[in-house]
Amino acid sequence: MTNTKAKLADLSDPLKIFQARFELPDNVIYLDGNSLGALPKTVKQRVAKTISEEWGEQLIRSWNTADWVHLPQRVGNKIARLIGAPEGSVVAADSTSINLFKVLSAALGLNAGRGKIVSEKENFPTDLYIAEGVAKQLGKGHQLVLADRPDDIPQMLDSDVAVLMLTHVNYRTGYRHDMAAITRAAHEKGILVVWDLAHSAGAMPVDLTGANADFAIGCGYKYLNGGPGAPAFLYVNPRHQGAFNQPLSGWFGHRSPFNFETGYVPSEGIEQYLCGTPQVLGMVALDEALSVWDDVDMEALRDKSIALGDYFIEGIDAFSAEYGLELVTPREAEKRGSQVSYSCENGYAIMQALIARGVIGDFRAPDIIRFGFTPLYLSFADVEKAIAILQDVLKTRSWDSDAYRVLGAVT
Amino acid sequence: MTNTKAKLADLSDPLKIFQARFELPDNVIYLDGNSLGALPKTVKQRVAKTISEEWGEQLIRSWNTADWVHLPQRVGNKIARLIGAPEGSVVAADSTSINLFKVLSAALGLNAGRGKIVSEKENFPTDLYIAEGVAKQLGKGHQLVLADRPDDIPQMLDSDVAVLMLTHVNYRTGYRHDMAAITRAAHEKGILVVWDLAHSAGAMPVDLTGANADFAIGCGYKYLNGGPGAPAFLYVNPRHQGAFNQPLSGWFGHRSPFNFETGYVPSEGIEQYLCGTPQVLGMVALDEALSVWDDVDMEALRDKSIALGDYFIEGIDAFSAEYGLELVTPREAEKRGSQVSYSCENGYAIMQALIARGVIGDFRAPDIIRFGFTPLYLSFADVEKAIAILQDVLKTRSWDSDAYRVLGAVT
Repeated sequence: MTNTKAKLADLSDPLKIFQARFELPDNVIYLDGNSLGALPKTVKQRVAKTISEEWGEQLIRSWNTADWVHLPQRVGNKIARLIGAPEGSVVAADSTSINLFKVLSAALGLNAGRGKIVSEKENFPTDLYIAEGVAKQLGKGHQLVLADRPDDIPQMLDSDVAVLMLTHVNYRTGYRHDMAAITRAAHEKGILVVWDLAHSAGAMPVDLTGANADFAIGCGYKYLNGGPGAPAFLYVNPRHQGAFNQPLSGWFGHRSPFNFETGYVPSEGIEQYLCGTPQVLGMVALDEALSVWDDVDMEALRDKSIALGDYFIEGIDAFSAEYGLELVTPREAEKRGSQVSYSCENGYAIMQALIARGVIGDFRAPDIIRFGFTPLYLSFADVEKAIAILQDVLKTRSWDSDAYRVLGAVT
Repeated sequence: MTNTKAKLADLSDPLKIFQARFELPDNVIYLDGNSLGALPKTVKQRVAKTISEEWGEQLIRSWNTADWVHLPQRVGNKIARLIGAPEGSVVAADSTSINLFKVLSAALGLNAGRGKIVSEKENFPTDLYIAEGVAKQLGKGHQLVLADRPDDIPQMLDSDVAVLMLTHVNYRTGYRHDMAAITRAAHEKGILVVWDLAHSAGAMPVDLTGANADFAIGCGYKYLNGGPGAPAFLYVNPRHQGAFNQPLSGWFGHRSPFNFETGYVPSEGIEQYLCGTPQVLGMVALDEALSVWDDVDMEALRDKSIALGDYFIEGIDAFSAEYGLELVTPREAEKRGSQVSYSCENGYAIMQALIARGVIGDFRAPDIIRFGFTPLYLSFADVEKAIAILQDVLKTRSWDSDAYRVLGAVT
């Protein structure tokens, strides 16, 4: 039974109307929208139309008649509005990893002569792997230097650092960097900054222009709800567009792809960061999912995100010590994204037991249980129920079962 | 009215039954399946199920329960059977351009110390652009050397060539290379060979193992009918797997992606050629489209492909000289793929007039009209009608209209 506090919070929630725009299964409290966003109701019909009418009936003609050819720019411009970027500075394309390869290569090219890439040990692994890959292929001895903790970063910024590459909100801890302050500090040393917005685009207002960020990348399938493996996006500050050619120089980045010229002449605009033929089905699903955002007040979104997180943290406070749950997310709202994580023994089994009870969060090795709060489709009543079920799972030790011990794949 | 010859050919066509497995619009003769394959009937339902049930209801759990996580390998193994590759040597992923970047980087790494990449001036442009991009980023002065004509290639193979990069069937002329002979000649000089199968996978039997090819890439949306911008594929000869790390080192190529380790340790198998999170919707559509191939006799496919092409060429022979159509595709069946192209003045306008009459082929700059023959869903009666309509368009000069002069995007 929902208590008065949760009821009141839901009653005065200005974003409540958005829940009806998502398909959510019965008897599930979905706290994993930071891993795979829920399904916006209109996506199924839109994709079906693209398959039946655009592909099935119009066939090849749809590249023009349905303007498939400009989907990367159209979808990019929709995302731009959510991350404080101007028209023509964002494209949707490929995966987050591949987009990072592009912008990191460009940033290192623009800051040639410097030998270091700075990031964090706790950054999402694929970002670090890609940085390794870029550095190795360039063969110029770039060193990847990793901070142990966010606070160590400022002192690592020296005049030999070419690029600072950070994820705005940490995938495990939910720690949120001060984008503007760090970018400013980096620029003072002539360092270019690449921001990974995987856990912030669609989770809070982001202001790339205000922060004067150089490059950004992000994910289409988390808070943007574009569907599993949705196209990712990338941002290039207009002042860097045309200044360096990223190396994944496929035909969609060519100035005139349909002239079929032998030599590569890059587009001077953001299109230069495209590579091969766009993945139309995924792009259309993401495009449709983004239409939900037309009416979302991003400040209200952030307010609700913080309130949901606070509500959860305070609820867990009542029994966390008893069961050895340690909050690894900053308690201070300003310093966290839209998720709350705890480290705890038997975290994997506990999460499996929660999932069996309909509370879907996820586990991140070695010992983190993670709960994402997506303000568009979660209510305070949901959070209250999740707290109660977690408490019950811990109290009854229902996680202590062989069924919950085998580590499976989780993304 | 269909003449006796076409009727008889259709009556004895062993692949006739496959046409019913595709959605094809009325009053259209689709000769552009080499650009975007037609829609297999079951794809719409399969994608709808993935959206509603796997994404909408099961949400994040589908990475395991629907085994989304292994889609690249599962789909890759289905393609492997069509191109003479063993299990575990093919993955579906990303775009053709990006996959070329991976395998070309690997091939150059395996053949370090050699300075040249050989290809053809007439290769599909994105392949040449990607080679430029790889060479530039490596910064080791690799030279891209381009043959004017296929016959010039053998004499260009010397001991300074690291990689020979060719498209098996040319996208404009339909010229088909002798894969086994060229690969053998290259290997004799210690050269690694990368084959682009964009216009051969699903168009004819391909035998990568028999030819002892080193690497191959190809397209999911042409003869494989995976839908617009479908995931592409890549093949790595088992002897090269694990021998060199391709540079797009995203988390899906890691030995243990879900351990979230800080350092990149590549998988030793074909998975190392994956990068970011797979695009599930496109992958599922391609997976479903590939199920059509379970019952296809690839030798019968090639026989019909040749017969359709012969039928078309012979039909056009009757009036090609009169209207200045010059066959640029080899007349000899052994030397062509599954398309027939003509160069002609006003080619763009002629193609637009044909499309307006329901005969969909395409135009390739500067002066090529191109007709693709997809044996699974084309009949000899279709080809006969296409010939008659082309003759009529030329005879009545119906192409000579302002409506048909503006060059649009064509892929």
